[in-house]
Amino acid sequence: MVLKLGRMTLKEWVAVESDSIQPVPRLRQELFRMMALAADKLRRLGASVDSVDGGSQQLPNGQTLPIPPIILAELGNDPKKPTVCFYGHLDVQPARREDGWLTDPYTLTEVDGKLYGRGATDNKGPVLAWINAVSAFRAMEEDLPVNIKFIIEGMEEAGSVALEELVRREKDRFFSSVDYVVISDNLWISRRKPALTCGTRGNSYFTVEVKCRDQDFHSGTFGGILNEPMADLIALLGSLVDSSGHILIPGIYDHVAPLTEEEKKMYKAIDLDPEEYRNSSQVKKFLFDTKEEILMHLWRYPSLSIHGIEGAFEEPGAKTVIPGRVIGKFSIRLVPHMNMSVVETQVKQHLEYIFSKRNSSNQMVVSMALGLHPWIANIKDNQYLAAKRAIKTVFGTEPDMIRDGSTIPIANIFQDVIQKSVMMLPLGAVDDGEHAQNEKINRWNYIEGSKLFAAFFLEMAKLH
Amino acid sequence: MVLKLGRMTLKEWVAVESDSIQPVPRLRQELFRMMALAADKLRRLGASVDSVDGGSQQLPNGQTLPIPPIILAELGNDPKKPTVCFYGHLDVQPARREDGWLTDPYTLTEVDGKLYGRGATDNKGPVLAWINAVSAFRAMEEDLPVNIKFIIEGMEEAGSVALEELVRREKDRFFSSVDYVVISDNLWISRRKPALTCGTRGNSYFTVEVKCRDQDFHSGTFGGILNEPMADLIALLGSLVDSSGHILIPGIYDHVAPLTEEEKKMYKAIDLDPEEYRNSSQVKKFLFDTKEEILMHLWRYPSLSIHGIEGAFEEPGAKTVIPGRVIGKFSIRLVPHMNMSVVETQVKQHLEYIFSKRNSSNQMVVSMALGLHPWIANIKDNQYLAAKRAIKTVFGTEPDMIRDGSTIPIANIFQDVIQKSVMMLPLGAVDDGEHAQNEKINRWNYIEGSKLFAAFFLEMAKLH
Repeated sequence: MVLKLGRMTLKEWVAVESDSIQPVPRLRQELFRMMALAADKLRRLGASVDSVDGGSQQLPNGQTLPIPPIILAELGNDPKKPTVCFYGHLDVQPARREDGWLTDPYTLTEVDGKLYGRGATDNKGPVLAWINAVSAFRAMEEDLPVNIKFIIEGMEEAGSVALEELVRREKDRFFSSVDYVVISDNLWISRRKPALTCGTRGNSYFTVEVKCRDQDFHSGTFGGILNEPMADLIALLGSLVDSSGHILIPGIYDHVAPLTEEEKKMYKAIDLDPEEYRNSSQVKKFLFDTKEEILMHLWRYPSLSIHGIEGAFEEPGAKTVIPGRVIGKFSIRLVPHMNMSVVETQVKQHLEYIFSKRNSSNQMVVSMALGLHPWIANIKDNQYLAAKRAIKTVFGTEPDMIRDGSTIPIANIFQDVIQKSVMMLPLGAVDDGEHAQNEKINRWNYIEGSKLFAAFFLEMAKLH
Repeated sequence: MVLKLGRMTLKEWVAVESDSIQPVPRLRQELFRMMALAADKLRRLGASVDSVDGGSQQLPNGQTLPIPPIILAELGNDPKKPTVCFYGHLDVQPARREDGWLTDPYTLTEVDGKLYGRGATDNKGPVLAWINAVSAFRAMEEDLPVNIKFIIEGMEEAGSVALEELVRREKDRFFSSVDYVVISDNLWISRRKPALTCGTRGNSYFTVEVKCRDQDFHSGTFGGILNEPMADLIALLGSLVDSSGHILIPGIYDHVAPLTEEEKKMYKAIDLDPEEYRNSSQVKKFLFDTKEEILMHLWRYPSLSIHGIEGAFEEPGAKTVIPGRVIGKFSIRLVPHMNMSVVETQVKQHLEYIFSKRNSSNQMVVSMALGLHPWIANIKDNQYLAAKRAIKTVFGTEPDMIRDGSTIPIANIFQDVIQKSVMMLPLGAVDDGEHAQNEKINRWNYIEGSKLFAAFFLEMAKLH
């Protein structure tokens, strides 16, 4: 009954076009409506709910838009029970039928056991699965084995504007009693085998500007007598990584955590067919052939990607310009135990060395535009043990212990600010298509995921 | 009197916003009006004038715009006299007061002996100087010493659409009696010393595409396991030219004409202060310090410029994208006696070699998108001798014998199609600012230039 109601609510929630990306007043209204629906749902569950005003945001064009409230809710405050705080978000990526959706993106539609709709897996389904788990105890008139808190936002896809500030503000109030934080905002690495996420890479994003003068030159009238900024920049960018993906910046691997035997076993156990993965990625060949090598290079080794160049000629056609000032952009995905400020220094020293060898008359400036630490969980922690046991109970298997090669800043925000254990417990299958057309959550994942959360509450209480 | 009338006509012509760049019906009407004014002027001079319908052009957006007529005019057909054909254009680059003009761009305004206005030097002033020269003979009721033909177009700034086709079509009619073609569509290299242009560089424009797949990747989820197309492309582009401007493609210098002692002397005689040139170019340092080295590397040696990359991230900000398919663009300015198809082969072989060494699983395609031959005049030719003598008469000096580092396709069109001697005889000073804000022609250049053309007619007749 609870789960049937849960599917009806998912349909109702998916029907709200809570798109936080497009800065349109109508969509902001939908976001506010979405947050109000969720607050109402939690209140009816018996939670005390606080919708915290998010203030407003000014867009680059000067327009001001209101930020939807962040919901802080709690159910139970028994000091003998552990307090688990669930983070989720109810905003979604844009979706239009004509982008290639086979069904209306805002009408939850079941086909062959798959529930299609924008937000179904990212992240409305998982938020409701948690609520379903709580409702199940309520419906059976059983005491909740743990104290539950919710923090639910509506701006995750737009960069979680206002979240960090709220977490800092509420550190000694709402979060003071929180023992564990659970996030269910990523996916398994398999279609059928559940997973627990225990780490993400960080990211340090660099810009390197080479300037001769502000205006461009014509290649006919100046080609041949200039240190062309593009030639300098190409040489700088070309010094960063070799054709096997190895980063050439001296010292960059010095602090990468050594590979342990235990970790090696973990990669071996993971359910991933490298050929299938390669095919589904539409890539002719990866740099590595084995499952273990692929996973290690996505999760536990740093990588360097060159993203592009600002200020050069980027349009179709043939323009004979010598750009006067160009900015190269690249980033390094960071892993434990790389230190961001050490990396920053290594990158700057390396580029300064390469540039000095060219004896160019141009000016070069290197900046680290963005730095996000890697995140690694303590998988010996109680909540990881509880989640493993719950997965065993519901799915009859050990989970894949996975990491995410991307950066999920909210994990670090919670870990750094409130200094409590953070766990990522995904519900969705690898092919759910978050952010893509025809996003879905499998009916099976949604139902078993709701059960998983309930089992997790019980295991959590036992271990506490 | 002729020259006073000439300045009045220049004012009238500059007042027409004959902008061929912006595809706006109103501006096309202005272009038609401009061509009609010129046809009328030539008719009043006694010329027989044919305004050849230019047809229409279809823009990338599907819009169709009419192309202004090309004027073919002639004055005299005495078989005993040489026939000189003057090429000019009456369209202009866009100009708006708010772009930084100190006077209204479409109101010819004299300040300190400078006539400011869009098109004053490029190319309405020189066209009128030629007409003034003819008018002077008419006013003095003297016979023209040469037969004169005019070909005047209105689409030069937009790529001389329709010109080549017309020249080919008229090869055995209008152009059959032409002995010499004179173009006055470039500038001196000095403020005060006249010049004769005797060569331009050609250009071969290359694209090199590296593709993994059509869609981009996220650097978090794929960084570390891919042969990233940007890394391949950066390595390819980085193999083309060193930091001293030397092109690294094997064999590329093989056919560059050897430097003769006579040519060396020519560079020595040219009026150019390298320091002043560097300062006015707002460049901290050139690759070369001496006048001779600078001129040789702009005119008689090839140069390679990297223009940019299509398909990568080129906007401000920090996007963590791994571009799936990128197209690098570079071009080589060609000089005598480089052969375009040899260059094409050398570039392709070099890039294929560099790419093969990387052992990348991506696909690479190199294409020559555009090829324009260098142009070199025979300065021993009668019309160059006549021009030198006329310059001596009017300015009391030998001209700078200069080349242009850019490519001026019309010179090659005339030389290739009608197989007659082409000369570039500039009138404007180096600081005239063609295409820029505050374009001007000096009153002195305009008047002496008109006299120069008249003297040239006389010298031409003597030498014939």
